[in-house]
Amino acid sequence: MVEPVDTLVSEAKGRKPVRVQVSPSAPLMKKITNLRIIPLGGLGEVGRNMMLLEYQKAILVIDMGFRLPEEDMPGIDYIVPNTSFLKGKEKNILGVVFTHGHYDHIGAIPYLIEKIWHPNLEIFASPLTRGIILKRQGDFSNLPRLDITEVKSGSKIRLGPFRIEFFRQNHNIPDNLGLLIETPVGDILHTSDFKFDSHPVNDLPTDFQKLYSLAKRKILLLLSDSTGAEEDGHSLSEKTIEKNLDEIFKKAPGRIIAATFASLINRIQQIISLSEKYGRKVSLEGYSMKTNVEISKILGYIKSKKGTLIKGKEVLNYPDSKITILCTGAQGEGSAILMRVAIKEHPFIRLKKGDSVILSSSVIPGNERTVQMLKDDILRQGAKVFHYKMMDIHAGGHAQKEELKEMIGIMKPKFFLPIHGQYSMLVAHSELAKEAGIPEKNIVVAENGKIVNLNQKRIYLEKETAPSNYVMVDGLGIGDVGEVVLRDRQMLARDGMFVIVAVVDRKTGQVKGSPDIISRGFVYLRESKELLRETRKKVIGIVNRAAGTGGAVNWSYIKDEIRNKLGQFLFSKTQRRPMILPVIIEV
Amino acid sequence: MVEPVDTLVSEAKGRKPVRVQVSPSAPLMKKITNLRIIPLGGLGEVGRNMMLLEYQKAILVIDMGFRLPEEDMPGIDYIVPNTSFLKGKEKNILGVVFTHGHYDHIGAIPYLIEKIWHPNLEIFASPLTRGIILKRQGDFSNLPRLDITEVKSGSKIRLGPFRIEFFRQNHNIPDNLGLLIETPVGDILHTSDFKFDSHPVNDLPTDFQKLYSLAKRKILLLLSDSTGAEEDGHSLSEKTIEKNLDEIFKKAPGRIIAATFASLINRIQQIISLSEKYGRKVSLEGYSMKTNVEISKILGYIKSKKGTLIKGKEVLNYPDSKITILCTGAQGEGSAILMRVAIKEHPFIRLKKGDSVILSSSVIPGNERTVQMLKDDILRQGAKVFHYKMMDIHAGGHAQKEELKEMIGIMKPKFFLPIHGQYSMLVAHSELAKEAGIPEKNIVVAENGKIVNLNQKRIYLEKETAPSNYVMVDGLGIGDVGEVVLRDRQMLARDGMFVIVAVVDRKTGQVKGSPDIISRGFVYLRESKELLRETRKKVIGIVNRAAGTGGAVNWSYIKDEIRNKLGQFLFSKTQRRPMILPVIIEV
Repeated sequence: MVEPVDTLVSEAKGRKPVRVQVSPSAPLMKKITNLRIIPLGGLGEVGRNMMLLEYQKAILVIDMGFRLPEEDMPGIDYIVPNTSFLKGKEKNILGVVFTHGHYDHIGAIPYLIEKIWHPNLEIFASPLTRGIILKRQGDFSNLPRLDITEVKSGSKIRLGPFRIEFFRQNHNIPDNLGLLIETPVGDILHTSDFKFDSHPVNDLPTDFQKLYSLAKRKILLLLSDSTGAEEDGHSLSEKTIEKNLDEIFKKAPGRIIAATFASLINRIQQIISLSEKYGRKVSLEGYSMKTNVEISKILGYIKSKKGTLIKGKEVLNYPDSKITILCTGAQGEGSAILMRVAIKEHPFIRLKKGDSVILSSSVIPGNERTVQMLKDDILRQGAKVFHYKMMDIHAGGHAQKEELKEMIGIMKPKFFLPIHGQYSMLVAHSELAKEAGIPEKNIVVAENGKIVNLNQKRIYLEKETAPSNYVMVDGLGIGDVGEVVLRDRQMLARDGMFVIVAVVDRKTGQVKGSPDIISRGFVYLRESKELLRETRKKVIGIVNRAAGTGGAVNWSYIKDEIRNKLGQFLFSKTQRRPMILPVIIEV
Repeated sequence: MVEPVDTLVSEAKGRKPVRVQVSPSAPLMKKITNLRIIPLGGLGEVGRNMMLLEYQKAILVIDMGFRLPEEDMPGIDYIVPNTSFLKGKEKNILGVVFTHGHYDHIGAIPYLIEKIWHPNLEIFASPLTRGIILKRQGDFSNLPRLDITEVKSGSKIRLGPFRIEFFRQNHNIPDNLGLLIETPVGDILHTSDFKFDSHPVNDLPTDFQKLYSLAKRKILLLLSDSTGAEEDGHSLSEKTIEKNLDEIFKKAPGRIIAATFASLINRIQQIISLSEKYGRKVSLEGYSMKTNVEISKILGYIKSKKGTLIKGKEVLNYPDSKITILCTGAQGEGSAILMRVAIKEHPFIRLKKGDSVILSSSVIPGNERTVQMLKDDILRQGAKVFHYKMMDIHAGGHAQKEELKEMIGIMKPKFFLPIHGQYSMLVAHSELAKEAGIPEKNIVVAENGKIVNLNQKRIYLEKETAPSNYVMVDGLGIGDVGEVVLRDRQMLARDGMFVIVAVVDRKTGQVKGSPDIISRGFVYLRESKELLRETRKKVIGIVNRAAGTGGAVNWSYIKDEIRNKLGQFLFSKTQRRPMILPVIIEV
């Protein structure tokens, strides 16, 4: 349980207060006295949350998350926020504040921290968030250990012109903190991801008293989580989920294999507690599951009795009805444990009749087909499958329409800026704000890269924008895969490639021998001999004709000619358009 | 409206009755007197429906559909059923019967018909289904015109040992026919895709009297549509949809842009009728939308008043509040009209404030992300979006749990085989059959390629299976893209490719000059000069060292060496694994 403390951490720890020079020669008074809010990620998308608050020269960073790539981005590992806006302003960044430990809020740190780091940079996070950040940072051997100051609900810090009070908010990970940010233009309330839950797991219920007391300070601007803004009603309480999971546990004749996200600490706790209730041992499978539980246990956010947790093959020593396997892979992630079990590639877990497999997570948009395949594979092996469409065994962590209206009703902000979500969610949230009585001119729907300008009287979008295009992570490369490389990958994927190497006699200009062809992903070469023969003939024809015209040979023209003619020819024969790459070698 | 007729089409049209030789030397009596049911597609997946009934040597084909490729099949256009089982048995195929005109039931005809066609092959379809098949066949200039006999609800035909009676079934396309198939082992009822609808559009309500009268003949085996078997309750009536669409029409201040599948003839009719009710002209956009409406109008399945339908730019001649644009693209299909409108690439339709965009279709699993992008793009331009998650403006065409139980209850079959659907849907449907009182041993869950053996006493799966692996259509190639080509495409997509061409002096064995590098989709070459320089050096080193050892040069060994060493080197520098293709040219 998180107990509120009330200390000015930054000052209490005896750090020297960070002060920022205010340039007296700033061009416009408006800019000097106004606050700028710059979303670099997470507005107009789900994931990759990162936001800047800029007052005069002082910059505060909130969250640094990543998101997963789109389907048309083969090979890309993650997308991270674009931090070009901060180039040259690194020294002005007073600190980074993290709301909670989900990867869409902390995942980009290893890729971006070096771009903004300086010796005076202060970083703040709750104990669990800090633990998860530091553990992950340790996975990157090239990165320095970060110095992160712990904050808790009730902690207050000062960073230049910003004074931040943290307050706890229910979500589906413990230690999630909302932010009350006092700024020279007025108070801003940032909800973090949140939901109202009167019966949460391993956590205190929503503290409405606290929310009302924060609201008394007259909130100038409310920044509120929009992820659930298109969903009617109220989010499910974890209590409902627990009741349904209990039903499954009560009836399960054999093993229970429960898959969820490794970051859903609360769900993991539920499954451990239920296993204890029904006398089952719990085996954790999967690296991220193991490490997250480890961190959470050390910090007291996951509790289990002595002997409940067993390891690996120990599951073989107990009757099936006494075993729970807790693993990752409810989304059908290719490399996760459940998928390896389903496709019979796990070293010692094989599905069988009597097993009950619980998929306790919602399906991330785009993953539906993969999850269907996973379900089918599990069923084929005789196991039962329980998933969120059949019964409420998963609750999203995000407030839905009724809760969002309630939050607006409590805070009664003058201005409203919906954050976190696809554009349609931001729009839906802005409709809720209108219904709650906020005038349309006081609501701004802003996407990544927009610059929101705020003073006591007015909120508006500046004409200037911050760069916000995708920064893609691929292996060790951060941002080096751009449009060109990606377009090539898409083209290669669609119809493959076709390299033709012609050796040309420098003296005669004629092709020597038979050109080499290297093709992949286009046609099955062994069954296309005739096609290749005709192709070689065409290339020889093009080169030799060009040489026959006399004069200097324009190789780049000839290569274009090969590309065009061969492209037409191959398309006419196959209706495919492989990438054609001619190589001409003069000897 | 489809009026029942009652004629023995095949005989009435004076065709010579098709008779099939029964071989007296067949090896096993069991096989001779039993019926075999062989699903070639659609069982264990959604789409690509095709099924065989085999009695002695006589074969009846039901439907020939395609499905769309999986996400990991770049470049593939469609997947069609594997018809290898029919190789050498073409002459035994007496006929093909089509249940309805959706592409997952007729779409594979252009790719497969030549494999099974012979001069005596008889093909049967309802008028609308026939119209759609013939229109599509016409799009393939290389294919012959098909001779298709029209059948209607009540039509009876005889094909060798099979006698088929067609009866109408509600779906979301008119002219959908269920099949009562009399066979020597007993009567089989095939539901086609269906739902029960007491208030359908432009169609008669479900004729329960007819279903009960068919059931009186003692159904030996029920083959029933499983697509909705995981959905609780009863499917929505088209009347509910119409009411909700009416609400949108009533309030829409400007243009209505309604997107749906071109094959959802009933929804198209609803939108045309509502437009007439509210004094709107209707413009059809998109090739498939136009042709389907054209066919349906000619055959009387879509009705519109004179002057309702206008063309293309005529929409510019009317006030916005008098315009409906009916188009394809509710799934976010890249090439469909709505997407082109949303990304501002349509020649004359631009979205604006006041527009109401209706997405009247469910989202096909896997398309969720694309549809989200589409929604966001529409909202960004100020238009309103109405979609099926907000209100019931789309009904699936498939019976849900209550209806499926009702169908089983009416037919009271001895045996039950769930058809059409993912494995999880077949399993869910088999559970419903158990609940309805069919003994477990009388239910078979079979996937594509399984051979179901049936007689009066028993149903079981044979040990033998029919080939059922994917046949992929890519351009003009049907089945020529296999595992190898697909794996190459996936690999090329992930990290691109890297061709290195070294010219080697035949006499010295040394590399001449600097090797050429052609790489795409790997790194941005202009920014990787150092990497390329090191790569060239490595290749020269490998080749020259090999030559230095004296003796005959083993080029295939050297190429492997280049692939391995370069692979390791590039991975260490980038953590990417491009496909490495070494070319060595001796001069």
